[in-house]
Amino acid sequence: MRPEKKGEIDMFDHSRKVPSATVTKAAKDALTRRGVSIEAIAKIVYEMQAPYNDGLKLAHCIESVESVLEKREVQHALLVGIELDVLAEKKMLSEPLQSIVDSDEGLFGVDETIALGAVYTYGSIAVTTFGHLDKNKIGVINHLDTKKGIGVHTFLDDLVASVAACASSRIAHRTRDLEEKGETFKQLPPEDTAPESNVDGAQ
Amino acid sequence: MRPEKKGEIDMFDHSRKVPSATVTKAAKDALTRRGVSIEAIAKIVYEMQAPYNDGLKLAHCIESVESVLEKREVQHALLVGIELDVLAEKKMLSEPLQSIVDSDEGLFGVDETIALGAVYTYGSIAVTTFGHLDKNKIGVINHLDTKKGIGVHTFLDDLVASVAACASSRIAHRTRDLEEKGETFKQLPPEDTAPESNVDGAQ
Amino acid sequence: MRPEKKGEIDMFDHSRKVPSATVTKAAKDALTRRGVSIEAIAKIVYEMQAPYNDGLKLAHCIESVESVLEKREVQHALLVGIELDVLAEKKMLSEPLQSIVDSDEGLFGVDETIALGAVYTYGSIAVTTFGHLDKNKIGVINHLDTKKGIGVHTFLDDLVASVAACASSRIAHRTRDLEEKGETFKQLPPEDTAPESNVDGAQ
Amino acid sequence: MRPEKKGEIDMFDHSRKVPSATVTKAAKDALTRRGVSIEAIAKIVYEMQAPYNDGLKLAHCIESVESVLEKREVQHALLVGIELDVLAEKKMLSEPLQSIVDSDEGLFGVDETIALGAVYTYGSIAVTTFGHLDKNKIGVINHLDTKKGIGVHTFLDDLVASVAACASSRIAHRTRDLEEKGETFKQLPPEDTAPESNVDGAQ
Repeated sequence: MRPEKKGEIDMFDHSRKVPSATVTKAAKDALTRRGVSIEAIAKIVYEMQAPYNDGLKLAHCIESVESVLEKREVQHALLVGIELDVLAEKKMLSEPLQSIVDSDEGLFGVDETIALGAVYTYGSIAVTTFGHLDKNKIGVINHLDTKKGIGVHTFLDDLVASVAACASSRIAHRTRDLEEKGETFKQLPPEDTAPESNVDGAQ
Repeated sequence: MRPEKKGEIDMFDHSRKVPSATVTKAAKDALTRRGVSIEAIAKIVYEMQAPYNDGLKLAHCIESVESVLEKREVQHALLVGIELDVLAEKKMLSEPLQSIVDSDEGLFGVDETIALGAVYTYGSIAVTTFGHLDKNKIGVINHLDTKKGIGVHTFLDDLVASVAACASSRIAHRTRDLEEKGETFKQLPPEDTAPESNVDGAQ
Repeated sequence: MRPEKKGEIDMFDHSRKVPSATVTKAAKDALTRRGVSIEAIAKIVYEMQAPYNDGLKLAHCIESVESVLEKREVQHALLVGIELDVLAEKKMLSEPLQSIVDSDEGLFGVDETIALGAVYTYGSIAVTTFGHLDKNKIGVINHLDTKKGIGVHTFLDDLVASVAACASSRIAHRTRDLEEKGETFKQLPPEDTAPESNVDGAQ
Repeated sequence: MRPEKKGEIDMFDHSRKVPSATVTKAAKDALTRRGVSIEAIAKIVYEMQAPYNDGLKLAHCIESVESVLEKREVQHALLVGIELDVLAEKKMLSEPLQSIVDSDEGLFGVDETIALGAVYTYGSIAVTTFGHLDKNKIGVINHLDTKKGIGVHTFLDDLVASVAACASSRIAHRTRDLEEKGETFKQLPPEDTAPESNVDGAQ
């Protein structure tokens, strides 16, 4: 949060700014590397939204997840959280943080906080959906439970719940738009699930 | 947050759902009726963002405010907050809420909470900008101070700060997109400030 | 949020400030009037926390709910939310807000926002617990469903979920303190559940 | 957020749980090591609250900061944020996160998100105060500006603003309690600023 004012002398070379496309790619690659596919997240979204939506297909949910992954807040949260998981796996955090992250300590909370930062941008429906997913560990979120002992996923399970909650909220808002036109997801080509994601410069 | 499941019997007539266009119009009308123009909010945005943006014009800021006012979260916050101000003016709230809202009591907090609900959807930059505006009361926000005795604006001053903060955040994100293309607001037609607001079904 | 500076001339009579005890009583009375007992909320807390806590009794949960109800943020949220429910029942809100609140419209969100304002003060565990309760409608929350047609409880169901989530989070933190002393709730007299609530001037 | 259920087999040794006292000490030590004294934070609090409080002394503000630093949410946020700053200084983060943190990139946002996690627990006054401090960089916050080139403090400046905002909010609530008894900070011994911090098991 330090935008340079016009004409302000800057100690950093502007060219150091990381291009958005690089950040987007890095966030998606990090998910893949940690074993979480977009489809696995989309399946959670489908499970959450199918009861309310005639004609909803997994393809709509995949589109919705893809559009969520285009958001800067979401990408930054993924990069930070996954970095901390990986550093904890390599025992590279200093104590006592290493032990806290390592054991996915019940009252830690920073994992949920970082995940919530992204969730908030999708409104209060996303917040309640996140809480539900975080408690009930549907789908791939369950496999990521650090307590199961296969690697450290203290941040990742919350981040996946966050992306799924955001994508669910996006579907719920879209449902309402369709309803007003007397339509359902049956009439909607998947690529129109989150139409803003096809517009250059949109957020 | 009670979406009907498919096939669920609903005690309410579906046709009772208020069309989005009605809500949008009602929120904008409420602002006008309470003496706040879109231009007045845009002036705050301009004051916040001009130091960081070559070529930014008031017209860009007006477009950004307009796009914020298209969001459901923002519209609902405006409708509830302004309703409570008006009811307090008419002495129609029950005690002790009437006295609390009437006197814009320092530790009340629900006014900021409702305003923050909308702010969160524009990310953490919007949150810090909101805090700044709420403390420093720039432009029209200052005129709305309930303590000045002309009507009750306990909720409205926070809501205006909220819309201005959201629109500022939208501009800051747009700046970054332009930068990556080697452009500034000088090259941007105002109607492209928030391109998603021209797309049907976008949020 | 308008504290008077020292020496500032104030258009309002200081004596108009509502005493804290009046606000506390009003918030609790409002809950009772709307059919929600402290015990009913405590039962939700018990259901959420008993699986993790040897020796937890309903009496501990009642103490925890009582301590949550001492917080200003919680009291203000209750006063505003219940006021809006009651005004909607009396058809005293202006349109389209009347119809939106009346029908507990799925994408409204201000009900959750107001409830979340209180939840945030109890940390991220409270946020996820709130989301879970909001989706799964345990205990008295289920009876309050506006869609069942007995009065309007659009705000109240979220507020009850909020108080229950806060009280659950308070128990979870207390568990940890006890654990460090090698104790459980078995050893804890209920009145020591939230020891700060017995201290004058504590928050 | 993985409390073990009663009787659940746990792959981790319970004794691995980090004692609260260790976490508290680590968080305070980390602040000191990064050049931020409790007194420096208290000076910000004094600057924010003195205009509203007759008889407020720096000693009250120090007590308030100390009480904030007793909170788990605050301690965990400090540990994570400072860890990331230090790792960035040592060039030990992976790209592109290293460059983003290194340059305190304007739209990053995770720094504010982590800081806000603690702020939320002190209510909406703390949120607006945080926004104000984050924009206006009062006192030691200004010295920490990463752009000045002396080390990486991308997270720390927001964390200090967070602690100062929380401590300011604590003072504002205390003021109200005193007012109701016809007192001011003139009559308050500093050690009674946050009375709950002297109670074992309080939060």
